[in-house]
Amino acid sequence: MESKRSNQSHEECPMNGGEGKYSYAQNSNHQRLTADVTKHIIREVILEMLDLETLLHDSSNVIRIADLGCSVGPNTFFTVQNFIDTVNLKSQSQGHGFDSLEFQVFFNDHVGNDFHTLFKSLPEDKQYYAAAVPGSFHGRLFPESSIHVFNSTYALHWLSRVPREIVDKNSPAYNKGRIFYIDEDREVTKAYSAQFKRDFESFLNSRALEIVPGGIMSLTFLCVPPDTKNGFQVLLNIMGDVLVEMANKGLVSHELVDSFNIPIYTPASKEVIELIEKNGKFEIEKSEFLYRLIDTKRLTDAEKACMHLRAGLEGVFKEHFEEGIVDEFFILYKKQLAEQFTTLFPVSDQTCKDLGGLFVMKRTLV
Amino acid sequence: MESKRSNQSHEECPMNGGEGKYSYAQNSNHQRLTADVTKHIIREVILEMLDLETLLHDSSNVIRIADLGCSVGPNTFFTVQNFIDTVNLKSQSQGHGFDSLEFQVFFNDHVGNDFHTLFKSLPEDKQYYAAAVPGSFHGRLFPESSIHVFNSTYALHWLSRVPREIVDKNSPAYNKGRIFYIDEDREVTKAYSAQFKRDFESFLNSRALEIVPGGIMSLTFLCVPPDTKNGFQVLLNIMGDVLVEMANKGLVSHELVDSFNIPIYTPASKEVIELIEKNGKFEIEKSEFLYRLIDTKRLTDAEKACMHLRAGLEGVFKEHFEEGIVDEFFILYKKQLAEQFTTLFPVSDQTCKDLGGLFVMKRTLV
Repeated sequence: MESKRSNQSHEECPMNGGEGKYSYAQNSNHQRLTADVTKHIIREVILEMLDLETLLHDSSNVIRIADLGCSVGPNTFFTVQNFIDTVNLKSQSQGHGFDSLEFQVFFNDHVGNDFHTLFKSLPEDKQYYAAAVPGSFHGRLFPESSIHVFNSTYALHWLSRVPREIVDKNSPAYNKGRIFYIDEDREVTKAYSAQFKRDFESFLNSRALEIVPGGIMSLTFLCVPPDTKNGFQVLLNIMGDVLVEMANKGLVSHELVDSFNIPIYTPASKEVIELIEKNGKFEIEKSEFLYRLIDTKRLTDAEKACMHLRAGLEGVFKEHFEEGIVDEFFILYKKQLAEQFTTLFPVSDQTCKDLGGLFVMKRTLV
Repeated sequence: MESKRSNQSHEECPMNGGEGKYSYAQNSNHQRLTADVTKHIIREVILEMLDLETLLHDSSNVIRIADLGCSVGPNTFFTVQNFIDTVNLKSQSQGHGFDSLEFQVFFNDHVGNDFHTLFKSLPEDKQYYAAAVPGSFHGRLFPESSIHVFNSTYALHWLSRVPREIVDKNSPAYNKGRIFYIDEDREVTKAYSAQFKRDFESFLNSRALEIVPGGIMSLTFLCVPPDTKNGFQVLLNIMGDVLVEMANKGLVSHELVDSFNIPIYTPASKEVIELIEKNGKFEIEKSEFLYRLIDTKRLTDAEKACMHLRAGLEGVFKEHFEEGIVDEFFILYKKQLAEQFTTLFPVSDQTCKDLGGLFVMKRTLV
């Protein structure tokens, strides 16, 4: 039994489109929460360090903003509006000459993203010119020195592909019986980490060319604070257990389960900071971990967690498994999660409910 | 019996999407033919009058091109590539400093356009950064002074809406029993012409702000050479006859037919030139009528004409009529057209097989 796709790239595999029950649009409260938290931090950094005179050295009055991995909204609109409001505020404080700024916003995601839903839901009173840019942010998307502000929220933990070694039966990193890495398996974790390193370096090199000197880039993605249980890893490895159980029951072949892996890596913040410093083209102005308070309605949380993960990961599953299998899988997964949730995430264990890391940086002047 | 939509605007009514039998992608040979014809004219004009030093006064090396009313391809890619090749050629002749040009191309059409098909069919070896811009070109789409080259092929004869008067039972311009204007009915024709004037003026004013001084705009659309039978008008009025016949047979209500009109106007070239001159923001560098040789396989031509018109107009029909009616209508229309085709368009009558008008203009330096 063959996988529906063999190259293990997820480049064509976006968040769930439309506006239905399992759509990203209906299941992205988590991202919205994060946007609320990051809003103030980003605001502060921009007001402090953005210099419009450097940014608009070509005497144009257009600020170009790009949101990478935007999905279908509505969070991307919220984030973008925050940038615009803040730049406008900054322009007032920098005196006249910047009072007639115009904004152009580029919404980027994979070719397969549901841009139609995005276009239909663009705010009617938007104060910017909107454009969509299809393609992978691991490569080039824009002309040189053409973007003033880059943002990416919950996208950079996606790898451009599943690391080759972990689906190679002859490799010590072959990830049999699991669909994600666990820290205890060093070989698999190393392969994931190496893929993230390659991808993040391509990302930084592309953005360094596309951003204007003095431009700002804000990246929020899943990453792990030091000495903390990786909650996302726990949730995904339960997925692997459910799939193996389905294979044991003959509902799906073992081979299909063994060849399936989730192309996501949640780096330690230390890894991210080292890569940015090694790249040398951006100066980190702020790096923070984002947390949220725990909802005490436990069962709802398990259900919400499942819906949330389904909205984001269903595409990867559907690329590999038959649709019927995917539906059955998520039913079983939700059941399993509800049973284990309070044990896995006890009320006292607040630190593992992190929302990821935020890194705000500035393109060095060249 | 009510129309499915009442505001009579066609803004949300794009060419047929996808890649099926009646899709625009499969039925736009006519447009491709035109692109072949205009290619050389546009090339000549750009080589003669484009000045890269004026255009790139901000010392950027990015040329931004926008195709307005792009539909889903492939013609838009062909046209865009011609602009890029020609600008590159020009840059070589203007000496060093322009040898590392980058291109960003904006594909514009209504929000309802099938941008997914457009994105999927972007040439793999494209030498530009692609972006899509959803929205009506009768209003603003881009920041000020941000586009160097505008193109629009077969889109500007579309009106932003059906003129109000022609669906008003109390107006002398009420267009009962027809779905398009005929020159003999002055009131209806005047209402269509006035709507075109308003739309074209909005278009020119928006583009004048968005284009850089010295930038080039090339517009190709249906328009009528002097002293010529308006072939398009003939084809559309046969559509009206077929609909009235369907109403007489009780297949559709008379009211529904009377309230239906095609929001297209094919101006005389004189009208277009006068409006451009009155607007005063562009200098016309070239205005030409485009012709093609006649295919002698008559029946094929009737069939092709029907398929072509269906790809472009089906959306407008489907907005107003039930889907079953639309299918039946096009079957009857094809039959009717095949019967009349040789009489209407005899071999000797070459001049009415025009491909429209081409107007190439330059933004005046301000």
